[in-house]
Amino acid sequence: MSGNSLGKLFRITTFGESHGKTMGVVIDGCPSLFTLKESDIQEFVNKRKPGQSEITTSRSESDKIEIVSGVFEGKTTGAPICILIPNADNRAADYSALKDIYRPSHADFTYQQKYGIRDFLGGGRSSARETVCRVAAGAVAQLILQSWGIQIVAYTFSVGNLFVKQVSKFSKVQVESSITRCPDSAVAVEIESEIRKAKIKGDSLGGIVACSIYNVPVGLGEPVFDRLEADLAKAMLSINATKGFEIGSGFEGTKLRGSAHNDLFNVKENQISFDTNNAGGVLGGISNGNDIEFKVAFKPTATIRQKQSVLTNQNTLAEMQLEGRHDPCVVPRAVPIVEAMAALVILDHILLNRATQL
Amino acid sequence: MSGNSLGKLFRITTFGESHGKTMGVVIDGCPSLFTLKESDIQEFVNKRKPGQSEITTSRSESDKIEIVSGVFEGKTTGAPICILIPNADNRAADYSALKDIYRPSHADFTYQQKYGIRDFLGGGRSSARETVCRVAAGAVAQLILQSWGIQIVAYTFSVGNLFVKQVSKFSKVQVESSITRCPDSAVAVEIESEIRKAKIKGDSLGGIVACSIYNVPVGLGEPVFDRLEADLAKAMLSINATKGFEIGSGFEGTKLRGSAHNDLFNVKENQISFDTNNAGGVLGGISNGNDIEFKVAFKPTATIRQKQSVLTNQNTLAEMQLEGRHDPCVVPRAVPIVEAMAALVILDHILLNRATQL
Amino acid sequence: MSGNSLGKLFRITTFGESHGKTMGVVIDGCPSLFTLKESDIQEFVNKRKPGQSEITTSRSESDKIEIVSGVFEGKTTGAPICILIPNADNRAADYSALKDIYRPSHADFTYQQKYGIRDFLGGGRSSARETVCRVAAGAVAQLILQSWGIQIVAYTFSVGNLFVKQVSKFSKVQVESSITRCPDSAVAVEIESEIRKAKIKGDSLGGIVACSIYNVPVGLGEPVFDRLEADLAKAMLSINATKGFEIGSGFEGTKLRGSAHNDLFNVKENQISFDTNNAGGVLGGISNGNDIEFKVAFKPTATIRQKQSVLTNQNTLAEMQLEGRHDPCVVPRAVPIVEAMAALVILDHILLNRATQL
Amino acid sequence: MSGNSLGKLFRITTFGESHGKTMGVVIDGCPSLFTLKESDIQEFVNKRKPGQSEITTSRSESDKIEIVSGVFEGKTTGAPICILIPNADNRAADYSALKDIYRPSHADFTYQQKYGIRDFLGGGRSSARETVCRVAAGAVAQLILQSWGIQIVAYTFSVGNLFVKQVSKFSKVQVESSITRCPDSAVAVEIESEIRKAKIKGDSLGGIVACSIYNVPVGLGEPVFDRLEADLAKAMLSINATKGFEIGSGFEGTKLRGSAHNDLFNVKENQISFDTNNAGGVLGGISNGNDIEFKVAFKPTATIRQKQSVLTNQNTLAEMQLEGRHDPCVVPRAVPIVEAMAALVILDHILLNRATQL
Repeated sequence: MSGNSLGKLFRITTFGESHGKTMGVVIDGCPSLFTLKESDIQEFVNKRKPGQSEITTSRSESDKIEIVSGVFEGKTTGAPICILIPNADNRAADYSALKDIYRPSHADFTYQQKYGIRDFLGGGRSSARETVCRVAAGAVAQLILQSWGIQIVAYTFSVGNLFVKQVSKFSKVQVESSITRCPDSAVAVEIESEIRKAKIKGDSLGGIVACSIYNVPVGLGEPVFDRLEADLAKAMLSINATKGFEIGSGFEGTKLRGSAHNDLFNVKENQISFDTNNAGGVLGGISNGNDIEFKVAFKPTATIRQKQSVLTNQNTLAEMQLEGRHDPCVVPRAVPIVEAMAALVILDHILLNRATQL
Repeated sequence: MSGNSLGKLFRITTFGESHGKTMGVVIDGCPSLFTLKESDIQEFVNKRKPGQSEITTSRSESDKIEIVSGVFEGKTTGAPICILIPNADNRAADYSALKDIYRPSHADFTYQQKYGIRDFLGGGRSSARETVCRVAAGAVAQLILQSWGIQIVAYTFSVGNLFVKQVSKFSKVQVESSITRCPDSAVAVEIESEIRKAKIKGDSLGGIVACSIYNVPVGLGEPVFDRLEADLAKAMLSINATKGFEIGSGFEGTKLRGSAHNDLFNVKENQISFDTNNAGGVLGGISNGNDIEFKVAFKPTATIRQKQSVLTNQNTLAEMQLEGRHDPCVVPRAVPIVEAMAALVILDHILLNRATQL
Repeated sequence: MSGNSLGKLFRITTFGESHGKTMGVVIDGCPSLFTLKESDIQEFVNKRKPGQSEITTSRSESDKIEIVSGVFEGKTTGAPICILIPNADNRAADYSALKDIYRPSHADFTYQQKYGIRDFLGGGRSSARETVCRVAAGAVAQLILQSWGIQIVAYTFSVGNLFVKQVSKFSKVQVESSITRCPDSAVAVEIESEIRKAKIKGDSLGGIVACSIYNVPVGLGEPVFDRLEADLAKAMLSINATKGFEIGSGFEGTKLRGSAHNDLFNVKENQISFDTNNAGGVLGGISNGNDIEFKVAFKPTATIRQKQSVLTNQNTLAEMQLEGRHDPCVVPRAVPIVEAMAALVILDHILLNRATQL
Repeated sequence: MSGNSLGKLFRITTFGESHGKTMGVVIDGCPSLFTLKESDIQEFVNKRKPGQSEITTSRSESDKIEIVSGVFEGKTTGAPICILIPNADNRAADYSALKDIYRPSHADFTYQQKYGIRDFLGGGRSSARETVCRVAAGAVAQLILQSWGIQIVAYTFSVGNLFVKQVSKFSKVQVESSITRCPDSAVAVEIESEIRKAKIKGDSLGGIVACSIYNVPVGLGEPVFDRLEADLAKAMLSINATKGFEIGSGFEGTKLRGSAHNDLFNVKENQISFDTNNAGGVLGGISNGNDIEFKVAFKPTATIRQKQSVLTNQNTLAEMQLEGRHDPCVVPRAVPIVEAMAALVILDHILLNRATQL
């Protein structure tokens, strides 16, 4: 497996297992001369932290990040930046039961088949714990983008059947005002209640994260394959538990006619804008200056606390009720992960675009 | 722009513009010793050919493919295979009107902004004509996969509001039995009628292509970033006019509870199977041996034959009714393109997977 | 085999076999807005052309290049540029004798073993005919570099035991003043005579090409692996028949003491220069503003017109005197190839370097 | 800068600065199921360790390696393997003098120019301390290769004007029998004396490392660019202080005629061998089954303890005698680094070659 890197010029490589010594990420290609503080990165990582509220997993990790290379006297030097996030709350003993079984809809079976071996402690490499590395690296990208005026705001668009009816330009403050990360406070209350109910029943929920990127320059994206939306789609579908990606009008937009779907240009005082944004900010694989708007589907958490049939390594079935800490719904904690992945893609494309014209 | 290649070990690079001399694709990394005939590739390319029915563009291209390298005495040699598809029905004159304007929801504006120049003849490089190269290369991949017993079948799942209600394991014959490539004959009739109506009105339609891949070995996919579904998503979102990708239960699946969504294992005579396929054939980014099932959303064609507001290169708006040949709905011709992209991804991952174990 | 591409941002992919339909190269990532004429590229390609003098192979190829994509109204558009160079003087019949034998020090044996098949016509893919693609692509790079004031001059430094004693800053005119491409006219005469003698005897000669790159900006090179000299070394060792690369003081420099080898700085009117150039223009993998100076070793041509022992595909030895057209010494025609490869590396690194600082 | 990774399928990424918290390397793509112990890696790393003898730098580093991911119950899992090597003997204070000056023939100047900032402590990222990461990763590669019967033996071929006259198939024991790593004991004594003399004078020496790889399978190398010798050349030229690479007959071989240079085949009991090895084990970019034989030139250490002219950041010159720990000759410690880089290239190509044939 050599698929642990993402990006061309701003390139990250992650490593670490759920109950190994440490998680970590190497950022190669971070431009030099950016002022970078561990505490700034920590803020982003904290948003993803387990145990942050009653509706997330109870695993307790401080997720204290440490920059071990690439920063000198507070500034990036252009050398690779390695960030370590040690695992603290390891409970290897909890997982001995998983050694010989494959849980349904988990990666246990496929990892074992592919590699002929697997670290079964809390999912090992396949655990969503790996995403802490993405959030740390994505924080660096977001800080740089922010310094250029580019903002990324993701939020909980839906959980189960509950969804935001009135979409608007939500602020980070609105998103963070609920532990659900749903910026519509009425829906947030319902979602919180729904997640609590699922948790009590030992069941789980899925949902959709929406993401907007504001102030993106025109011209990002490298057709014909490295289209901006193609790289965003890949980045999003590389997150654990994702099952779908759509940009702009997405699947619903397929029902419109072209005459209704086309985004007409607008010109005011020589400034070009668009009447609508069915494109979601990309045309022909290249950003058009409008907001980038996309959604990501997350399936209900595969881990549930109900008796279920599992496969054993003897090719038999067994009934089992699994214990272990997990999120009854990953969506609230997925919000910062989606933002991180978006930032990584956008920054990489900004750097790539520097080579476009003579 | 250096984004015109896709794949790691089975790697394609496409070139050519809509009204340039020739389209072409180089396949680098095709395994040696495969028997390859131009006529076999031609069959796949013909399915995408313009002018194949009354509901597609009237542009007339023979799309006659020619292999100019990499094949010796009928077999692949391991050397790069270049396939040329000359452009015949060029009508540069038709496009002089486009020189100074940017059509809404087209790539005219973004290409001009990004590159500071654009080939405006029929969309130049941004034209979906480029996908003929993908189909040619994808044909090679499909032929190899078929020789290993792996089958890819895509079809028109929906156009506008019309969609297949009863999904089953459709055959290629069923798909090809209608010019709409919708295998549900009742729905196919409705769709055909709908497309004809849109054509008459000078309007356009969108829709959804569904794709199944049968007999995929367990173990394809390279976590954590080069997950199989991530690479499929990227490949699909790199196709012109796509706005979404979902695998397995997709966006709808987010409404289920984990207890309903989990795909339980089944064991019969030591053969492992799954009760359901909400996963769409992938777990943890790796194929699980179940059918790969995904959908791709296509927006309504941006080109319409109605008076519309366009942007001029003087930053003013103008009313204009555009002429030129185009598909009122790209979905029927997108079916072979989706299959081609799927084949490219699957074959690349089969080769990558050879390096997994010691 | 997927090793037919070189470069990261300015990336070339070559295809074609010695006696196939056409040679070709795709340049992906060429910056837009550069004025590019076929005739300008042709001039570079002509310098490598077979049959250009009595001391080269008698194969007669017009090597007429054709740009089939990526250029619109005389300017690069940022789309991939495909250049075709059709093969004209094919003499497949000449090579039937090679079908079942492996010539010593040729790639016949290794291609057959690796791929299980080989195009044996004139070496197929392993023929140095492939380098015409590099020269065509390198011409584009050189034209761009020239427009920025960067000059690349390679020349025949030695053939056999004859070498240039007095190295200076040779001009392209000096290099081209002899068919040997040796700018020292006295040595050139000797070399020409030596090559003629070898030709008559049916024997062959090796030699060394020296290359200087003038006016290179400080800062090119991406440590720690993609050092400028590392990428130059790879590019040069990827040329047929090369056996060595050295930069600056090279192998001889290993005999010096540090106190003699260090290149001391010089400052005049705030301009920094160096007293010597043992570094060959690179320090720590990054260009230092001094001229880049390197040498490339070419072995004597493996094809000779003398009776030799060859291996048969029956694992026996046979005596054979091979016919077929070839260069008794590749060095004169290697000069433009070395320049081309150097240009590709330098331009790629200039584009990469645009992403270095914030 | 995003050039800190090497390899395609067996891919390493290094990080860390000379006086930072830790050095480290991530290996992505290590095949699963290999038994890997820290102590086995440590043995390789110890051979490169500073302070190992009187003729190396006096910097004292335990270079204790720690595997923090990718190994489970003693076996590789296919997940990325991160190895950390903390820096212990940091003496930041020693380097305050370097802050404002650029040493001749060091990377100080080019790093400052390229990145606009540099970690000046002991050379920061440009220090050869980074090579400890390569040796650690290369150890993993060598252990795997050894398990397949492939052996890599490098040795000190020359230092200054002293060189091994009688080259033979030296064993690792012979190489390690002298602190100079010169397997010819008579020459080793002379070299040791020469290095001691240079050390006393505060001067430095260069030299050449020779390397042989035994038992390499036929078929490694991916023409036309990723030839085996091209990737070896790049890997070697990416090592600090290297100025040249040659394979087989190299630069000297250019003086031979083809009739003398060609390596004739030999067949005995159906086994193919070669009478000579001017090719150095590669033909047409592909291994031919013969030993791989190459040499790497190392310049004399740039750091000397003599008064020298340096450049200041005020663009003035200053006389300065630099202190600080360094090797008077890097060659003995370069031997394990060359072996490591060779192993990384060979293993990567073995994995790549698995995709060659159908």
